Parts: sequence; C-alpha cells; structure tokens
Amino acid sequence: MVDEKFERYVHENLNRFAKDVARLASQPSVSARKEGIEECAILVEKMMREVGIQTRVLRGEEGVAPLLYGEMKGSDSNKTILFYNHYDVQPEEPLDLWKSPPFKPEFREGRLYGRGVSDDKGELVSRLKLLESYLKVNGEPPCNVKFCFEGEEEVGSVHLDDYVSQNQELFRADAVFWEWGGVDEEGRPIVGLGVKGMIYLELAVKSLNIDAHSSNAAALPSAPWRLIRLLNLVKDENERVSVPGWYDKVENLTEEDERVLEEEPFDAESFKRHYGAQSFVGGITASQAKKALARRPTANIAGIWAGYTGPGSKTVLPKEIHCKMDFRLVPNQDPEELLGRFKDFLKEKGFGDVAVEVESMEPAARTSFRDPFAQASIKGGESVFGKKSVVRLSEAGTGPLYVFTQRYKIPAVSIGVSPPDNAIHAPNESIRLDLFEKGILWLAETTRTYLSG
Amino acid sequence: MVDEKFERYVHENLNRFAKDVARLASQPSVSARKEGIEECAILVEKMMREVGIQTRVLRGEEGVAPLLYGEMKGSDSNKTILFYNHYDVQPEEPLDLWKSPPFKPEFREGRLYGRGVSDDKGELVSRLKLLESYLKVNGEPPCNVKFCFEGEEEVGSVHLDDYVSQNQELFRADAVFWEWGGVDEEGRPIVGLGVKGMIYLELAVKSLNIDAHSSNAAALPSAPWRLIRLLNLVKDENERVSVPGWYDKVENLTEEDERVLEEEPFDAESFKRHYGAQSFVGGITASQAKKALARRPTANIAGIWAGYTGPGSKTVLPKEIHCKMDFRLVPNQDPEELLGRFKDFLKEKGFGDVAVEVESMEPAARTSFRDPFAQASIKGGESVFGKKSVVRLSEAGTGPLYVFTQRYKIPAVSIGVSPPDNAIHAPNESIRLDLFEKGILWLAETTRTYLSG
Repeated sequence: MVDEKFERYVHENLNRFAKDVARLASQPSVSARKEGIEECAILVEKMMREVGIQTRVLRGEEGVAPLLYGEMKGSDSNKTILFYNHYDVQPEEPLDLWKSPPFKPEFREGRLYGRGVSDDKGELVSRLKLLESYLKVNGEPPCNVKFCFEGEEEVGSVHLDDYVSQNQELFRADAVFWEWGGVDEEGRPIVGLGVKGMIYLELAVKSLNIDAHSSNAAALPSAPWRLIRLLNLVKDENERVSVPGWYDKVENLTEEDERVLEEEPFDAESFKRHYGAQSFVGGITASQAKKALARRPTANIAGIWAGYTGPGSKTVLPKEIHCKMDFRLVPNQDPEELLGRFKDFLKEKGFGDVAVEVESMEPAARTSFRDPFAQASIKGGESVFGKKSVVRLSEAGTGPLYVFTQRYKIPAVSIGVSPPDNAIHAPNESIRLDLFEKGILWLAETTRTYLSG
Repeated sequence: MVDEKFERYVHENLNRFAKDVARLASQPSVSARKEGIEECAILVEKMMREVGIQTRVLRGEEGVAPLLYGEMKGSDSNKTILFYNHYDVQPEEPLDLWKSPPFKPEFREGRLYGRGVSDDKGELVSRLKLLESYLKVNGEPPCNVKFCFEGEEEVGSVHLDDYVSQNQELFRADAVFWEWGGVDEEGRPIVGLGVKGMIYLELAVKSLNIDAHSSNAAALPSAPWRLIRLLNLVKDENERVSVPGWYDKVENLTEEDERVLEEEPFDAESFKRHYGAQSFVGGITASQAKKALARRPTANIAGIWAGYTGPGSKTVLPKEIHCKMDFRLVPNQDPEELLGRFKDFLKEKGFGDVAVEVESMEPAARTSFRDPFAQASIKGGESVFGKKSVVRLSEAGTGPLYVFTQRYKIPAVSIGVSPPDNAIHAPNESIRLDLFEKGILWLAETTRTYLSG
C-alpha cells in the first residue's frame, strides 16, 4: 500500500489541489472553436513548471494546438511511465442548462462544477499533484515519468500521431496512464483497457443556390429530403451500418475477453434512468446494451441543421442541409478504408454529389487484460477502494490510444479521479473531491505495484 | 384606358410613393417573432389616415396582431371593392446574405431593397397610393372601397377568419384585390385566381432527458434517427404524401381549368437557373413542374435542427430533434381532416409519441376564370402592359384567400406591383420602381373595366 505520509500529504492538500483544477478549468479551451487553446497551453506549462517538471512546448503548423511534453527522472531509472492527458474541452452548449457558468468553476456540496473539471483538466491536474506529492514526500518519483498533454483531443487528436512519430525518442515509455477514469456507481474502480475508434464527418447536401419560398417545393429539389433519404440508407433497422464491408475485419473476441466483458457489471436501470431513456435502442436487453457499448460500431447523428429554426413559422425551402456524424469503430476496423467504402456507398446509391468533410479519424485500441500494467491497475484499484476492480474491455468512447498501444505497442490503462455521474460533454460537468483524492492514491498504488512486480 | 391625368399623377409622384414603401419597410414587423407588430400597425393606420381613409383598429386577444380596417365611399355606391394586404413580414434570416440591411431599405439601380418591400408592404402602399391618386385627380374613388390589412399573414393568418366572421358587415364586398402580384420574366401581367392551402407544423422527438456523449449511441435511442425514420415514411419516392386518404378529396380540373393551366407560360430554364437547381424534383419535366406548382400537394421540410451545429466536432447524442414542415394543399383538401389523418398515421407507424404542434392551417381557395372581376383583371393587365395576361389558376403559395372566396363567395384576384425576381421570403427582397408604377395603373384599369362591365 502507498505509504501513510504520502496519503496524508494528498489529504491535507486536497482543497488546494482542487482549487488548481478550478484554476485550469477557468481558462476556456474549446478546441472545436479554437478558443483559448494557446492561453490554456501556457497555463498548463506554467502549472507543470510549478511542480518542477522539465517542459518542452512542441508546436505544429499555424493553428495546430501546441503539445506540452514534460519529464522527470525517478529513483527507478529502468522504467518510464508516460501520462497522457489533454487540456482542451468540449463546447459548453447548451448554455441554458448549466446551473453555474461553465467557465467559472464552482464548488457545491463536495463537488466542483465546470466544463472540463473531469474531462480532462481534473485528471490532468491529478497527475501533476501525484508528482508534487512524490516530490514533497519522497523527494523524487519512483520511476522516470513523462507527460504528453495535447490540446486537440476533443476534435479527434488530429495531430497527436504526427507529434509522437516526429519525436519518438521523447515518447518512449514502458507504460501509459491514459487520460481518464474513476469508479462506477457502486464505488468499484474501473480499469479501462481500450477505446473505440471513430470517423467524425460532416455531410452537406446543397440543392439550390438560394433559399426558396417553400411553395416551390412542388417543383424544386429539397436538400433536407435528399439527406433524409440518404441517412435512411446508412443504417438499417437493426442498428447495423449498411455500407458494404463495414464489418468485414471485425474479429470475434477471445474467450478470455468474452469472460472479461461478461463479468463487467452494468447497472442497466440506473444507466437508462440517468439519461431518461425508456428503453435501450432497438429494444435490446441490458446484456446486449452492455456488449454494444464495448463492441458495437455505431453511426450517430451528432448534429443536423437546415432552414428556419426560430420561433413560429417560416415557409422556406432550404437551399442546403448539414449533418455531423460520428461512426464508432471497434478493433481492426480501419477508418481510412471505411471512409472510402462510405464514399463509394454514397456514389453507388446516387448521392455522389453529397459533400463529405472529414473532421477526424482514429482507429480503436486495446491493451491485453494479461499485461502486467493492466494487472497492476486492477490490483491497485482493489487496494485503494477495497472493492474488486471492474475491468472494462473497451470504452464506448474514443481517444487516440492507438498512437501508443497500436503504433508503439506500449500498454496503456485508463484510470483516474472522476465520479460516475460526471456529465462529461454535457452541462454541469463535475468531479467529486473525495474521488479526486482516492484517484491520486490509485495512480500511486498502481505505479508501486507495477514497479515491484 | 385609365385617364391621362391619373397616369401623370402617378408618374410624377412615383419617387415619393416609393419613399413611403421604404418608410413602411423600415419598421420591422416579423410576425414569427412577434417583433414590431404593434408599432407597424400604428404606422400603417397613420399612413391610411394620411390618405384620408376612415380607419378602425380591430383587436383580438392579448398578443393577437391588430387588423386595420378602412373604408371610403366612392362615386359608384353600388359596388364595393375590398383590398386585402398584410403588414407583417417574413423573418430576415439568413442575415449574412443581405447586401444592405433588411430593415434599412435601400434604393439601388431602379429598385428598392429590403424585407417586405414586395411582400407585402410595397403592395399595401401601392393600394394607398391608388386611393391618393383617385382623390387628387378625381376627388373620390370610382366605387366604395374597403381595406383589410392584417398582421399575421406570414404565420398563417390564424385570426383573420375570426376577425372577418365577427365583423361580417364591415367586410361585405363585391370583389377583392388580393395582396400581391405582378408581371413574369417576359413582362406579361399575371392574374392569380387561387392559392394552395397549408398545414404548417412542428414535429418534436425526444428520446432522452439530457444530451449524452455520443459513445452511448451504441445503447441509447437516438431522437434524430427516429425522426429520420419517420420522415422517410411521410413522403414516397414519387413526391406523394404517404398518409392514407391524403388525396381522396382532390378533384380533377375542369376542361377549362386544364386549358388555362396548359396555356400558362412557364420558363422552366430561367426558373431553374434562378434557384440554381440542376433539375426539377424527381426529374419531372417542365410541363409537370408547372402543373405541380399549381396542383401538387407538397410535404416540405422548412427547418430541422438537433445537437451540435457549430464549427468542428462535438460528439453528442442529442436528446431531441425538431422539424418544421409545411404541407401545401389543393382545393377540397380539408386541413383539419388531414391533420387528423397525419396524427393517425404517426400512431399507426409507431410514432404516437412524436409531438405535433400546429402553427397554422388554411384551406386552398379559387376564383373562377369566368368571373367578371377575373376577366376585368385579365383585360386590365393587357391594356396597361400591352401584352396578353397570364392567367394563373393557382399560386404555388398560400394565403387566407378562402376567408373571402370560400366563406363568403366573393371573387378575388391577385394582381400587383412586384417584379418576377422579387426574392420574397429570401435575402435581398426587392421591387422595381417602373413596375410599381405600372401596377398601380393596372389596379385602376381593372377597377374601371369591372365597373363599366
């Protein structure tokens, strides 16, 4: 177990740690709008230096968010652990549903509310505070540590792969603490071993050069109707993507993975209740829903807009319509290949004129359940929380995990400091201070177990 | 022919007349947003009084736009002509496409640009200037005249029927000049004999209480997908509304109406070019497109919105989606009945939970080609423009014509002062000053022909 002095230091400094989360979350950094990114990068680097981390600001072309690299030598110089986090956040809309302003973090009843306090600024700060605690208690971290803090995660980490491949020496490591994690509703630590991949794109159909009076819909083509016909073809009634070949490379799970997935608890009722869903999509069972979250490739409509969207009525035939879609992928599905198949599908179905703008593409990623770092995280969680760890074969979500796990074969686990009801990507995102504290201990205990293993 | 003194008066005062259009169009009056309605009504009444018209402001319940009634006795006291116009306008969006501000009317190259300068403030002012010219030249109008200026036409004239039925004495008339009209691209006067009806509604599908991270789309129901499935069922590939019974009451045209429709010119290429359309909807021919504009019931998507619509990407599963639709109807289709059929259809198809909010309902309306007032308009147009009048059996658009033609059997024709490229309901709406002048003469010549007939 992590030593008592360490534990006490974290406990006694918790409020100060949390204030630093609020400090970082006060700086907007909405990558979708390229808002506050540079300012936030400067602040993160400052906070890294305050801990004593040696930093380097890596820069790409004009407009690309800087990547903050950091390192520090530790007592065990044979092992290097890399921390991956991101300092950008999701857009804060819809604004009217926030109880306190998204970029003015507020403490209420043991929680801190604000955009990014969980995803991923709270997690990022927890890593810095882990380091600070090592230094204050032991004078040094237990092994070499590296930091990779990027600013484009929420827009698909479009440059992370380049940054890492152009600086391979810097990013060499034995294990990676992935950006995010926490406990489930029962307080059980969740160890994440993988993520889904994603293709995020925007479709645009344009049928006229100008908006027309809607009476002309009797004779003129309608962009909205055309997109609706198209979308209706993209996914079938069983939630399967209808593009030929979409599932060709999806492999069946190993028996062990099947067992891990089977053992993962899933509180279907509380999940549905949280979102106010009457049932799962397509009427699938709780067990099917759990498996779908880990294993189902999806085709989601994240946004759609055309014509008049104000109050009352306007009789318009919109000249165009736009639709944002995210397709989640599972291991072995190649985003590049599937994008090509999608475009071919559009052509074949007579929609070759539809504009397809790709926002981001990321393959899925997975670390083996048997990997020592994964096992250390599982044991570390059990030791800190006193409950059996939940092993999550794959998040339903996506992250650029493949940059480390698939490209360089570095094992990575996703654990962290966030509560189950964190409302990430939604209004009133929050963390719980008690879990913020325990999460730091979990990172420390996992590291200890890994190094002693 | 209208006498020379009258013609000269209109010509010499044209610029002042046009400035009064600009004056009225400077006052925003967007009924969809209930913006500036009261202020505009006050201004219209003032302008009526300036001409010498005796006015009455009819009022409904709180929030209902006032209806401006006006009257004046004329030399022939056996006949009463009523002018119907409206002082409300369409919303001005999309703002960025306007070359000059929509509510700061601007004169450029023989035109006046601004929201409502054609539809319908230019037309309304032309009626006032017709009266002014009668008074200045002859001391009185040639027959009794009445005015009915409403403020809710662009939101479906939801209270006009009530206003008129509660004041039947006021609105008794022998003929109605409908709100709007003008010449076609060839400069031929168009005599409108009818309008389509309309059901305007907003559909809302809600599947969750909160927006979710889009990774949950693997398990949670999607409101956007549900609406897309629904919409896909509403209209078939041949542009026919799939709701059972939708076409049951539609009657075939009489032989004479068929001939009138056949004779109506239609410059298909210039129509398509104007809107930048590659072809007509569903690949129909020019002749079919012309017939469709007059006779095809439509189901149009006027607006649709859900989720994230900003720049870049946001991975969200939207909790709800909204869609505004207008269904155009032809004579004999009963909006009330069809709305019921539509709701039954939703239930039958498993979409009984979809919210249907009705914004407005209006039946179609038609005046006979043989009616003396229609014939006077046709001849009047030919006399003023020196070209054969185009008779339009039905506009593709909608108006509350039924309140007069169907309820009280008063013949009505739609003629006016607007150019063919008026961009009504769109950015850069405009009128041409030369046609504004001729339109006033046309109203006068039609009246003269009608009274002498």
